[in-house]
Amino acid sequence: MERIDLEHALSSFDDHWSPKIIAALNGQEVKLAKFRGAFDWHAHAEEDELFLVLAGAFRMEFRDRSVELERGQMIVVPRGVEHRPVADEECAVLLFEPAGLVNTGDGETSDRTTTGTWLDPESTDQA
Amino acid sequence: MERIDLEHALSSFDDHWSPKIIAALNGQEVKLAKFRGAFDWHAHAEEDELFLVLAGAFRMEFRDRSVELERGQMIVVPRGVEHRPVADEECAVLLFEPAGLVNTGDGETSDRTTTGTWLDPESTDQA
Repeated sequence: MERIDLEHALSSFDDHWSPKIIAALNGQEVKLAKFRGAFDWHAHAEEDELFLVLAGAFRMEFRDRSVELERGQMIVVPRGVEHRPVADEECAVLLFEPAGLVNTGDGETSDRTTTGTWLDPESTDQA
Repeated sequence: MERIDLEHALSSFDDHWSPKIIAALNGQEVKLAKFRGAFDWHAHAEEDELFLVLAGAFRMEFRDRSVELERGQMIVVPRGVEHRPVADEECAVLLFEPAGLVNTGDGETSDRTTTGTWLDPESTDQA
């Protein structure tokens, strides 16, 4: 039951496409990530995924269209839907998804493939 | 797979302690709410609950302490823990919690008791 300061937590890491877990509840996890460039096309067979932009902007590409998202905007990508986030400039995103979700889903495994790593609790609050 | 603009969605309602559902995923719901004043003491036997402050500030009171939360800060209240949000001034909050959660939990039912109502999709994006 500790306070989590998103800006403080974001300031504690610099790597891209490497989600940091900041909270777990009801079998779900809340993660923070920084995006820059294009991620790989993939889908998650059993998991819906929420993306909320905390800073900057990115574009969620689908096979038939894309959706531009900026700070304060979010989107839910339903299970089974192919998608690819693309950030022309660095952006910061909050993710809400089932615990254990693999970021590359059914796509090819790469050196970016991860289920996320817990952020040090000291990094999540300024107090 | 529509974009949801939080500020736009918040501008579409004024009532307090009346969560508006803006998204559903993995058996969970994302809700927006405005707080002002003190809510009722309660706990949720089976549900963890996340509060993320979008505007303003509030205080999450527990029986043995309280946690001040301002914009950009969040807290997870684990199942079974008695709590009471108190907002000295109006604030806006994003909630992540299991679908169907009753806001007053195991507390007394009142005219504020609700599982939330879906916000009109036209209210969730400015596009």
